[in-house]
Amino acid sequence: MTAAPARGVGRRDWSTWPNYQAAAAGFRGYWYPVGWSSEIRGRPVAVMLCGEKIALVRDAGTVYALHDRCPHRGVPLSLGNQQFPGTLSCPYHGWTFDLPTGRLAAVITDGPASPICGKVTVGTYAVAERLGMVWVYVPAADEPAPPIDAQLPEELVGTSFVLGGRMQRRDGNWRFAAENGYDEGHAKYLHRTSLWRLFKSMPVWNETHIVRRGRWIYRVQDAQHWHADFPGLGRWTSHRWWKVNRPPAEGTHVSNVGNTGGTSRVDPVIAAQDFPGFASIAMPGVLRIAYPRFIHYEFYVPVDERRHRYVGVMVNFGGTGAAAWFWCKYLAAIRWLFHGDFSAQDAWMVDVTDAPPERLYRPDVSLTEWRRLCEDVVAGKMEPTGRPAVAGPRSHALARFRRTQVHRVRP
Amino acid sequence: MTAAPARGVGRRDWSTWPNYQAAAAGFRGYWYPVGWSSEIRGRPVAVMLCGEKIALVRDAGTVYALHDRCPHRGVPLSLGNQQFPGTLSCPYHGWTFDLPTGRLAAVITDGPASPICGKVTVGTYAVAERLGMVWVYVPAADEPAPPIDAQLPEELVGTSFVLGGRMQRRDGNWRFAAENGYDEGHAKYLHRTSLWRLFKSMPVWNETHIVRRGRWIYRVQDAQHWHADFPGLGRWTSHRWWKVNRPPAEGTHVSNVGNTGGTSRVDPVIAAQDFPGFASIAMPGVLRIAYPRFIHYEFYVPVDERRHRYVGVMVNFGGTGAAAWFWCKYLAAIRWLFHGDFSAQDAWMVDVTDAPPERLYRPDVSLTEWRRLCEDVVAGKMEPTGRPAVAGPRSHALARFRRTQVHRVRP
Amino acid sequence: MTAAPARGVGRRDWSTWPNYQAAAAGFRGYWYPVGWSSEIRGRPVAVMLCGEKIALVRDAGTVYALHDRCPHRGVPLSLGNQQFPGTLSCPYHGWTFDLPTGRLAAVITDGPASPICGKVTVGTYAVAERLGMVWVYVPAADEPAPPIDAQLPEELVGTSFVLGGRMQRRDGNWRFAAENGYDEGHAKYLHRTSLWRLFKSMPVWNETHIVRRGRWIYRVQDAQHWHADFPGLGRWTSHRWWKVNRPPAEGTHVSNVGNTGGTSRVDPVIAAQDFPGFASIAMPGVLRIAYPRFIHYEFYVPVDERRHRYVGVMVNFGGTGAAAWFWCKYLAAIRWLFHGDFSAQDAWMVDVTDAPPERLYRPDVSLTEWRRLCEDVVAGKMEPTGRPAVAGPRSHALARFRRTQVHRVRP
Repeated sequence: MTAAPARGVGRRDWSTWPNYQAAAAGFRGYWYPVGWSSEIRGRPVAVMLCGEKIALVRDAGTVYALHDRCPHRGVPLSLGNQQFPGTLSCPYHGWTFDLPTGRLAAVITDGPASPICGKVTVGTYAVAERLGMVWVYVPAADEPAPPIDAQLPEELVGTSFVLGGRMQRRDGNWRFAAENGYDEGHAKYLHRTSLWRLFKSMPVWNETHIVRRGRWIYRVQDAQHWHADFPGLGRWTSHRWWKVNRPPAEGTHVSNVGNTGGTSRVDPVIAAQDFPGFASIAMPGVLRIAYPRFIHYEFYVPVDERRHRYVGVMVNFGGTGAAAWFWCKYLAAIRWLFHGDFSAQDAWMVDVTDAPPERLYRPDVSLTEWRRLCEDVVAGKMEPTGRPAVAGPRSHALARFRRTQVHRVRP
Repeated sequence: MTAAPARGVGRRDWSTWPNYQAAAAGFRGYWYPVGWSSEIRGRPVAVMLCGEKIALVRDAGTVYALHDRCPHRGVPLSLGNQQFPGTLSCPYHGWTFDLPTGRLAAVITDGPASPICGKVTVGTYAVAERLGMVWVYVPAADEPAPPIDAQLPEELVGTSFVLGGRMQRRDGNWRFAAENGYDEGHAKYLHRTSLWRLFKSMPVWNETHIVRRGRWIYRVQDAQHWHADFPGLGRWTSHRWWKVNRPPAEGTHVSNVGNTGGTSRVDPVIAAQDFPGFASIAMPGVLRIAYPRFIHYEFYVPVDERRHRYVGVMVNFGGTGAAAWFWCKYLAAIRWLFHGDFSAQDAWMVDVTDAPPERLYRPDVSLTEWRRLCEDVVAGKMEPTGRPAVAGPRSHALARFRRTQVHRVRP
Repeated sequence: MTAAPARGVGRRDWSTWPNYQAAAAGFRGYWYPVGWSSEIRGRPVAVMLCGEKIALVRDAGTVYALHDRCPHRGVPLSLGNQQFPGTLSCPYHGWTFDLPTGRLAAVITDGPASPICGKVTVGTYAVAERLGMVWVYVPAADEPAPPIDAQLPEELVGTSFVLGGRMQRRDGNWRFAAENGYDEGHAKYLHRTSLWRLFKSMPVWNETHIVRRGRWIYRVQDAQHWHADFPGLGRWTSHRWWKVNRPPAEGTHVSNVGNTGGTSRVDPVIAAQDFPGFASIAMPGVLRIAYPRFIHYEFYVPVDERRHRYVGVMVNFGGTGAAAWFWCKYLAAIRWLFHGDFSAQDAWMVDVTDAPPERLYRPDVSLTEWRRLCEDVVAGKMEPTGRPAVAGPRSHALARFRRTQVHRVRP
């Protein structure tokens, strides 16, 4: 036995995907969710997004976002409050900024004729509210914000649904979170011990390929293997006697809606999407996992180079009855088991991932295709966002439990 | 709405004031208070001052200061103790240093004939005790320490008074603390919610100018405005119905002793100073706020580039009766309300100030004049200290409450 | 008094001993103890040694050590577990490594025919178990590990003994710990207040010289002085009335077994070693203090440049009766007083030592000779390890108390 550097280490950097490599603090030119709508009220809230400090405040029903630094002496504006409608005042000297424009509208401690008014402006950010959340646009340069609905998953625009979700600030770069989310390989192994899968077997390995459609890439499952004999080592399966939801016989037709091989009837809205595969991802880090009766989304929101915000959302498109039933199910189980325990396993791995260097293997085609998607979008080789929205949705909060929420959305 | 860098950001550095810019760890060539006299006893105490580690110890009534690093192996001498009168021994190997000179007087573990004795010396600092505090001189080069009394506020030398004060180590560069202290603009706005001002209105804005006299600059109030109408926004005042100490009518004579427009009889010692303005500041960061019956001082003592020591002192020049009354008032109220709650608002802002870049406004003439004062003193264009002291004061501690103290000083 | 840089500062770096200076993270090419054998079981344990991350795991009775980083995505293998005998699997995607060779034996999530198997290898480390501890060899290059017995203190190979010990991860570079351990000067002064010395006087200063024999250097005591008169300061002694173990008369014969001047009968195994001096040290940081009835060893194990692992071991070579008595004595007293309170004083000083620069004195010949020993060994001027072992020892754990342990070892 001798200690030696690992052989076959593989890629030492991500220079194959230069734009992806450069996006440590996130891709600019996109909308990102930064908080639940119900959390942003009249008292300013500080968030960090793509490494930028932002102060959010709600005024007369509308949420505004300012660069969170008073130009006078660098004090965060989010520590201040509102002295006049439509404005935000710095706590130190009462510099008062117009919320829509960021223009210095008054300096309380310099009187009504303060000569500095109108000569100073803080940066502002475009803000929208969708899915019960506040979204902020991080511009690439000085461009105006494009319509947010063109960036949302298409099936969430102009449709009616109920959603439950969880937000959590987590350690680790947003790209590790996105790669973990779309990663074909880990789920079956890492999550085999999660409570969410307590009664369900997971495959040992799958045969998959990736297809592109529009701005999404889809993972298509060609075959699933529920046990395997490893040469020289022995047989391996994640099936256990208590997992009553037994694996199908080898060679059974592989469903691409849901990843458990179940045969539930598929919700008509979900069926209408005709997804080529059950797992899909799009810029700037939006994951979509289609189950027969609901869709699970994850948004990986860059905080800075070391941290990200996990936003997990589960959506049910059923009518009022189905929605009420989903509502109960989400609050009683999904948010603890799936958005809690299951997702915490991902958070654990994202936190300890340390790449490059990295040595990729066959299932990592999902990672490399995702990186290639990012490169192609940045290079202008494909459409960055979806079809324009039919109509803006109306959102209504049904309940709120700490960091998890349930919302009813109608078109 | 588009996100853009703040317009009109102003100064990107302090190169207009090069000596000030370079003094991140404090101005050298000055005396600084580092602790209450009663706290420095026979057991060594470690302090950091202008980025230097200093060990303080009292021997036979006199306080000594050594560079807090044993030259042998770098162990802090402040971890040691006294094995012989007039010396301090390192805890590791018993290297024993003469307190007045810093000379290595003995090495216990090398016997009486240790050949290294007399060949090694640690740096020493000049020490004085004034106002119930221990002061240390930080030399600019190798110069001997000048008399400390020439650096103290003139009215504190040769007079009799009682004082109460508080020391606190705080985050933030000492210059932010000094600028906050002398800053014309913030007090009326930031402190309007302090308990110290619970029953007193504060002006909205003032008209002021700065005058120099001797080594001090004074802020002279030309007009005070207690409410103001801001175009397009509305009327603003800090007056509230419960503030029984009502603002004077607009256009009333503006007092420059006290900043509340009160009409109390002025203490004869204070009146004799004939201060041009109620707020003054001098190198190396000494603030003086003159009230009718007492004077409040703040010393901003550099710890290192990121931290400072706040020393707030309130002085009453009255006779024994007035002093006793002041003594009660300080312990019962002033130290909680003024040196506590009110000053904590300053500590909060000093901690979050992040400049340059900065964009100064009209009232910041107090800041720029203070910076110009520092430049002129360093450039030798004006006298650095005051008149020589008439006689050294005698100090007597009346009481001690954690970090606050009350002292009686007689000439 | 003026503040000035310390005069006579001495060496500003360790360039006199270039290999020693370069060994901030430890000397490579040596075996190091990393944990108690009983602590390394089937669940992987992460350790850091010489700045390298290592995963330890026991399989079928044998301990294996792998580089603690999965080449796939950088996740620590020590977070994983065993899915097949003789292997360790990464928790993220089930990459499964052969323990003896580090070869990638299977990738569970890529099925039995995964093309990557056999193409990737993680580094392994040679492992041995001696003295109830797990030892890991840190190679200098790619060389195979030499026999560990040739590196152990000679008297611990092929003999029968009982040992008690303590391991503790401590702050401070391993060289400060080694220098502190062998340092002639500090013990008498720093430890005079330890409980271990409560009833025993310590000398004030000694006259010593260093001799080399084989791969060890020995400190030989020529004279001990139990009190001393320091010119201009006075008399000093660590003797106190309650120290019933009184110092011998000045000029008494100095024993080089035991450092307290006692006259106990010397254990035959210890006597047979004929140690030139009671304190000796060898590469890569092994201290040996010979007492009449037992030997105390300290191993200074580099964790990284800032931290080390202290391993203190006390060994008794007596027969079963003596061993049982030593066993009681260790658990009842030695581990609290010597490996606890006494050793904590060393840990305190090692943590605050900050050199170079340093100014050495006469007793520091022990330090400079230790550094010279390291240079000579690295330069190949002397034998790096001892005679080959007669036979591998068998170890048997008698008891286990948190981080302290007692072991019985037979040849």
